[in-house]
Amino acid sequence: MELKEKAFKSVSRKTRQEDTVIDIGGGVKIGGGNFTIIAGPCSVESEEQVTEIAKNVKKSGAHAMRGGAFKPRSSPYAFQGLKALGMDYLLEAKRATGLPIVTEILNIAHLGLFNDVDVIQVGARNMQNFELLKELGRTDKPILLKRGMACTIQELLMSAEYVMSEGNTKVILCERGIRTFEGVTRNTLDLSCIPIIKAASHLPVIVDPSHATGIASLVAPMSYAAMAAGADGLIIEVHNDPENALCDGDQSILPSEFDAIAKKLGKMAKIFNKNM
Amino acid sequence: MELKEKAFKSVSRKTRQEDTVIDIGGGVKIGGGNFTIIAGPCSVESEEQVTEIAKNVKKSGAHAMRGGAFKPRSSPYAFQGLKALGMDYLLEAKRATGLPIVTEILNIAHLGLFNDVDVIQVGARNMQNFELLKELGRTDKPILLKRGMACTIQELLMSAEYVMSEGNTKVILCERGIRTFEGVTRNTLDLSCIPIIKAASHLPVIVDPSHATGIASLVAPMSYAAMAAGADGLIIEVHNDPENALCDGDQSILPSEFDAIAKKLGKMAKIFNKNM
Amino acid sequence: MELKEKAFKSVSRKTRQEDTVIDIGGGVKIGGGNFTIIAGPCSVESEEQVTEIAKNVKKSGAHAMRGGAFKPRSSPYAFQGLKALGMDYLLEAKRATGLPIVTEILNIAHLGLFNDVDVIQVGARNMQNFELLKELGRTDKPILLKRGMACTIQELLMSAEYVMSEGNTKVILCERGIRTFEGVTRNTLDLSCIPIIKAASHLPVIVDPSHATGIASLVAPMSYAAMAAGADGLIIEVHNDPENALCDGDQSILPSEFDAIAKKLGKMAKIFNKNM
Amino acid sequence: MELKEKAFKSVSRKTRQEDTVIDIGGGVKIGGGNFTIIAGPCSVESEEQVTEIAKNVKKSGAHAMRGGAFKPRSSPYAFQGLKALGMDYLLEAKRATGLPIVTEILNIAHLGLFNDVDVIQVGARNMQNFELLKELGRTDKPILLKRGMACTIQELLMSAEYVMSEGNTKVILCERGIRTFEGVTRNTLDLSCIPIIKAASHLPVIVDPSHATGIASLVAPMSYAAMAAGADGLIIEVHNDPENALCDGDQSILPSEFDAIAKKLGKMAKIFNKNM
Repeated sequence: MELKEKAFKSVSRKTRQEDTVIDIGGGVKIGGGNFTIIAGPCSVESEEQVTEIAKNVKKSGAHAMRGGAFKPRSSPYAFQGLKALGMDYLLEAKRATGLPIVTEILNIAHLGLFNDVDVIQVGARNMQNFELLKELGRTDKPILLKRGMACTIQELLMSAEYVMSEGNTKVILCERGIRTFEGVTRNTLDLSCIPIIKAASHLPVIVDPSHATGIASLVAPMSYAAMAAGADGLIIEVHNDPENALCDGDQSILPSEFDAIAKKLGKMAKIFNKNM
Repeated sequence: MELKEKAFKSVSRKTRQEDTVIDIGGGVKIGGGNFTIIAGPCSVESEEQVTEIAKNVKKSGAHAMRGGAFKPRSSPYAFQGLKALGMDYLLEAKRATGLPIVTEILNIAHLGLFNDVDVIQVGARNMQNFELLKELGRTDKPILLKRGMACTIQELLMSAEYVMSEGNTKVILCERGIRTFEGVTRNTLDLSCIPIIKAASHLPVIVDPSHATGIASLVAPMSYAAMAAGADGLIIEVHNDPENALCDGDQSILPSEFDAIAKKLGKMAKIFNKNM
Repeated sequence: MELKEKAFKSVSRKTRQEDTVIDIGGGVKIGGGNFTIIAGPCSVESEEQVTEIAKNVKKSGAHAMRGGAFKPRSSPYAFQGLKALGMDYLLEAKRATGLPIVTEILNIAHLGLFNDVDVIQVGARNMQNFELLKELGRTDKPILLKRGMACTIQELLMSAEYVMSEGNTKVILCERGIRTFEGVTRNTLDLSCIPIIKAASHLPVIVDPSHATGIASLVAPMSYAAMAAGADGLIIEVHNDPENALCDGDQSILPSEFDAIAKKLGKMAKIFNKNM
Repeated sequence: MELKEKAFKSVSRKTRQEDTVIDIGGGVKIGGGNFTIIAGPCSVESEEQVTEIAKNVKKSGAHAMRGGAFKPRSSPYAFQGLKALGMDYLLEAKRATGLPIVTEILNIAHLGLFNDVDVIQVGARNMQNFELLKELGRTDKPILLKRGMACTIQELLMSAEYVMSEGNTKVILCERGIRTFEGVTRNTLDLSCIPIIKAASHLPVIVDPSHATGIASLVAPMSYAAMAAGADGLIIEVHNDPENALCDGDQSILPSEFDAIAKKLGKMAKIFNKNM
């Protein structure tokens, strides 16, 4: 089945041949020949936690930091994030390390809290929240758009088109696993979408091996596989104490494990002609 | 795999044994021994269209009318609905027929336009838009919550819990097909979820055979199958001119076809002890 | 997505307009206006077991008896069936009740044991065992062809074509659930395939609610839904002692439950113009 | 969800800690620190074709040759392979190049034709043809067992157990894509199964990027990703004239493309500590 490119004309490589390169601040770029690594905890839990992890991953070579302050949880009784306070802690970690911040928005009414955030993430469950996409299309912030669990590549590109059609050209796509019958992994990481998207679109595509697999020991091999498949970067969950993480500890790796992954990716980067 | 009932305690039949029966106005109830049919066009297109269809489906025995004024479309370039004007047309049809109105909300900021609406629909793409669910949980309107394309029964019940946890007990669940590898039908209608949900929860469950299949000729057999599987009702797309419908014409049936379906359901209702 | 009818020309309704009606012996027919119920245990366990169940289901109105002597099990260490001895027990039950026998073949080398069997079943795992299909196409036995767990409707019809292309026109199709992300039920019963297949092919289609759901309490509602969706019959697992069944006890119903289902189907048959 | 290791005890790494290394002849080994590449056409079409491709891929570093003589096709009217004649051509190519031969068996009755074959392939559609697996378990030939389109990792390992339980310890597993809702690629390559299987089992695992994606331009990135994910090798379709291939031309690459892939894999092998 072929992609229908007319439905995502701004996003299509037919409209723009060169790779879009997105400057997310702090001298960090996503797209083009760059391989960009975003790392950090699933949830912001305390100022110390997030700053410590930020310092650690920066030392290992991470280019930006992730951390959730507003958390979309299947259960209303699960930890919903530190919200505004969590945003403060993230910005404190940014001041301490200089790393650009990537964090998720759940509600357009919160947009005022995102002024100093560098990249606004739209989570998988909101990939087809078209009202949110249109509003974000009217900002000038880089948008990290995650593929929905049951969304096709065609639909991902059409959701990116929603953002671009409102004027915001800074869209970063993210593959984070799709839902299949296989239950050993949390989702099934669809790495073959990477070359498909790179051929069809000028937008950068990164991979989230943590949510895709739900298993810490799979983060390393899937990170290497993502670079090998042509991804423009990674977003990885790193926690200083995964066993006591408030969210998704099973898929979080330690800073020391992150360091080893970053080193091996550095070696691979030479073969794959990527700047890291 | 068993359902984890603790995650949806308000929704669970362990908390409330009797069926929840929801009064949606105009003397129409959903749940308990009732079989309730909601019919109408995918999109509101004009005042004449919606009023004419409303009159027709009322004559055939429909209990409520559906029609979309705000349309969630995969493409930003597809028809997005008549919006506020469409809401006016729906309310006009309500005045003309007395039928309660069911229509979809995409953005909590539009809530003010829904004052005279009888049932607010949350579409499949927003089933895990938890911010929207929480806000709707603070209203006292009946909420029609559609199952997401790739959402499990467990997750559907947990999303209903989001609404109930904020105080709104009037939640109607809706199966509308899940995404599978089979591509002849638009989705795969999962009728076995009906007895599963009826055993696990006191909330009513209806079926949308139109979106589930995407094929007009399947609406009749899947409507009968839904009643036979134990559903509390149906939501069916009916259009006076499917070939020229602005949205989803392929799955819309004519008023005359709707009339035949309603008649046969009436006969079945006696065997299945349903009030129609 | 449309079916490609050229790939199953013998099976297609374009080639033969009238429903194929298959005489399976003992005065029992499948297809046309008939609604045919096949019932019995998953596995043949003893002569007494199979004969007792056969007598019971016959009293309730079953038209044929099922029972597995050769069992395809995911594990080599699970019970593999009584094999030749099981075949003897089945034939003994046939003599005792007059019910035609339906049983599964796993290996064409066993064909000699199937001389007195009335319907040879090809299980879901063998739906694309083309060598087996071709060999069965050279017999004159009715073939019950179950849809593979991950096979499309198109592929099911093409597998039926394998049998018909060798000369055997007696093919009965069977929907038994497809594999999806939903794990509460063992598989997802795809009832919308029934009207699709009935429109595209002249062959009869029956439904297996037991394997499709894996849950005994779902057998009744899914049986009713199958008739309502237009199926030509059912194949149901019935066991006199489900808790101690050697195979699939969770999805087996008691003879008394079968009796209640058969009675309700009898009432429905009048509305759906089916001979039972 | 955890794997249930008791169901595949011979296959489990709990039973045997060291990697199984399988000698497939001609000095070629699969497993352990080796990265083994099997290349060749989907179907054997002529003696010249298969020998020419064999010579080409050998020059580029392929360790073994694949080619189908018996072809499992969804349609009975599609090319079914050259059968015995195709086997002769394969063996001729083996004599000409010294490359071990990998080819698929569809019917145990054909086993006599496989005496000089080095690896017998069981295709995805036969992964749960347990009768075939048991018979192959009584041979001493290496068996290449492909994962079924809708089979879980658990089931793949249990099918390998069928072979091992009969005494044959030479089983090579192969991931070749699973069936999902995504239709741009033919299947969805599940690379995360590689580290899962490597942790749970001592058997080697290779990847088939050609069948998994169905798109020639994806073979290179998915081959690199497979090595990066920890695979023990690849099986790749190479054809000298893909546009006129009798089978699966869309996914076949040219010998020159294969050469470039092999070269880049050679560079990666140093980082991933693989012998090539």
